[in-house]
Amino acid sequence: MVEENILKELSAKTDSKIVLVVLDGLGDLPNAGGKTALDAAHIPNLDQLAARSVCGLTDPISRGITPGSGPAHLSLFGYDPIKYQIGRGVLEALGIGLELTCDDLACRGNFATIDTDGIITDRRAGRISTETNEQLCALLQKEITEIDKTKVIIKPGKEHRFVVVFRGEGLEDGITDADPQLDGKKIKYAESLRAESEKSVHIINKFIVRCLEVLKEEHPANAILLRGIAKHPNLPSLQELYKLNPAAIAAYPMYRGLARLVGMSILETGETIADEFVTLRDNFQNHDFFYLHIKKTDTYGEDGNFAAKVKIIEEADQYIPALLELNPEVLVITGDHSTPAALAGHSWHPNPFLLYSRYIRVDEVRHFSEKEFVKGGLGRFPSTDAMPLMLANALKLDKFGA
Amino acid sequence: MVEENILKELSAKTDSKIVLVVLDGLGDLPNAGGKTALDAAHIPNLDQLAARSVCGLTDPISRGITPGSGPAHLSLFGYDPIKYQIGRGVLEALGIGLELTCDDLACRGNFATIDTDGIITDRRAGRISTETNEQLCALLQKEITEIDKTKVIIKPGKEHRFVVVFRGEGLEDGITDADPQLDGKKIKYAESLRAESEKSVHIINKFIVRCLEVLKEEHPANAILLRGIAKHPNLPSLQELYKLNPAAIAAYPMYRGLARLVGMSILETGETIADEFVTLRDNFQNHDFFYLHIKKTDTYGEDGNFAAKVKIIEEADQYIPALLELNPEVLVITGDHSTPAALAGHSWHPNPFLLYSRYIRVDEVRHFSEKEFVKGGLGRFPSTDAMPLMLANALKLDKFGA
Repeated sequence: MVEENILKELSAKTDSKIVLVVLDGLGDLPNAGGKTALDAAHIPNLDQLAARSVCGLTDPISRGITPGSGPAHLSLFGYDPIKYQIGRGVLEALGIGLELTCDDLACRGNFATIDTDGIITDRRAGRISTETNEQLCALLQKEITEIDKTKVIIKPGKEHRFVVVFRGEGLEDGITDADPQLDGKKIKYAESLRAESEKSVHIINKFIVRCLEVLKEEHPANAILLRGIAKHPNLPSLQELYKLNPAAIAAYPMYRGLARLVGMSILETGETIADEFVTLRDNFQNHDFFYLHIKKTDTYGEDGNFAAKVKIIEEADQYIPALLELNPEVLVITGDHSTPAALAGHSWHPNPFLLYSRYIRVDEVRHFSEKEFVKGGLGRFPSTDAMPLMLANALKLDKFGA
Repeated sequence: MVEENILKELSAKTDSKIVLVVLDGLGDLPNAGGKTALDAAHIPNLDQLAARSVCGLTDPISRGITPGSGPAHLSLFGYDPIKYQIGRGVLEALGIGLELTCDDLACRGNFATIDTDGIITDRRAGRISTETNEQLCALLQKEITEIDKTKVIIKPGKEHRFVVVFRGEGLEDGITDADPQLDGKKIKYAESLRAESEKSVHIINKFIVRCLEVLKEEHPANAILLRGIAKHPNLPSLQELYKLNPAAIAAYPMYRGLARLVGMSILETGETIADEFVTLRDNFQNHDFFYLHIKKTDTYGEDGNFAAKVKIIEEADQYIPALLELNPEVLVITGDHSTPAALAGHSWHPNPFLLYSRYIRVDEVRHFSEKEFVKGGLGRFPSTDAMPLMLANALKLDKFGA
């Protein structure tokens, strides 16, 4: 990808519309019968579209590197995933649906059990129920709303996990975990790794002390551990960079959060794929870039459930005709990374990438599959090139040089 | 390739085993009949393996750039060959089997003839015999063992060529050649190109003066010229970077030397390909990464001997079944660079690259050849991506980001 400053200079506002459909973890590995989920799925609409498109395979980071959801998405949105790394605390906050501002410092938290000497006897407080967690977070939030003029926001996750967000001016990351990572150790306070984060460390450690006071009589959750302390990454927005008015349609909070980080409007939608496509249709006149995220291809990949992954792909296939009726100038259908059922997790394998527009050289691909896309006219390329390709095909990029 | 620091953080120790077989200079150009050495060779085992693997083509440095053996190998081992350049002196020392330490400064030497005014009349001293060379080196070594507490090691090469290694603290390179490169010029002393190398220049020039004294009465070899003065490159090792316990099996000293530079253990082996595969089998339990180097594909390429290159490829083919019986988690068969018989030298053409593991998308390649590999699922990629790919397929790399 050329530098984002160059793209920024070349980008032009137009009425043309781009739709980017991300089937999370779409790429797969062959099963015992030699078929990937895409090979096994009956997807006449995607196959037909592939025959009229130009296709290829993308690497989110680099060959051999397995990406998390954060870097994989940033890459697709045109951000160098090495330059812009999103901290764990921020991703966790996005994952449970917290809306972050640029001033925020976010941390992952555990409820834990300590003995009278302050030694951790259980880093997960016996995996307390999510209900107990919710009660404890409510209690902490009632007692602690602000420290040194910094707002404190506490939100429960599942079981023993929660998120704390510190919101205020002058907060910085570069802070050690306040978590020794092992039972049998004393609880640990945060430490600063650079001068700029000293104020934040002070606030975080005051917060820990206050929590220990509030939780003193609780059992087993009488302490907290904080880790992944990270500042909002403050990315340049897609408006700033490419003059887009982008919108996100995503049923899962994490992906709405990632979209918000790059300046997308979040469109309210329902739980199903059908809901998401209705949302797209209903809002099609209001934006010029749509990111539509389908989660369950990844979920079933992570579960190692090949058959269910096949079904979700088949379900998504049904919405292609209606999508084409909207007549976007550019349509991309791809994955953010591969999640092969055979590995039950993310992997390093490249992603099928389909681009449909008026201005393409249709290639010899006739089926939507990993193997067919090897022959695709787009070849193999870094995911960060997806954004320039979409902008170009929407005639939103001027000429470089004279 | 992503930066080595990122790979270092992601790399994990596991029991899985990687075998990297390098057929030196494997890539070829078509002969009059339109066939490369690989096309002409009868290689049923490699063809069968290709049909079960994922294949591609690699560029050691960049398209159009013909690499030497040093950068071509570094690339395959995962080192940026532009960032890590190995000086000529060091390569020459490795080539004649000198074991270098991190403190060493190595130079290529010529015996030369000078007249009574110190004017060079023959830069190669009439290409003295290797035997004479050995006698002269022994004489010099007897007279000169140390200069200013720096150890001096002199070792003969072929004809008029030898190597000098200076071993001691505080030696640095950044030094001009002590060689005017032309007959009819005065002999030349070394000069410092940066402040740090002044001590070394002083030692080298004292060495030259001592040599001139010792050789005064010799004829025609009454002087020496030094060039390619280079410090040991002090590369981070494969252990440090990727937590590997790697071993090299190579009949030729240069390749054992290159392997030693990246921290490989050198396994004793014999002269033949058969010997090398026996060594692999016998040591298979003791390491998790094996580099097995086959030299003669390159030698015959350099000789312009197409038929002999074909034969060596056919010989190598016979060892594939036994190699597969060892059941390594990852097997790569590739070249370091091309050495087409038609060019009788290294070339810039990309290398066939075959990757076999449990976690691949088998592609449509059915034969092991340059032409078939164009269709390969790995596409065309820099050789530096080979290491991340091997590590990923051996499940030795964690996820990047969350």
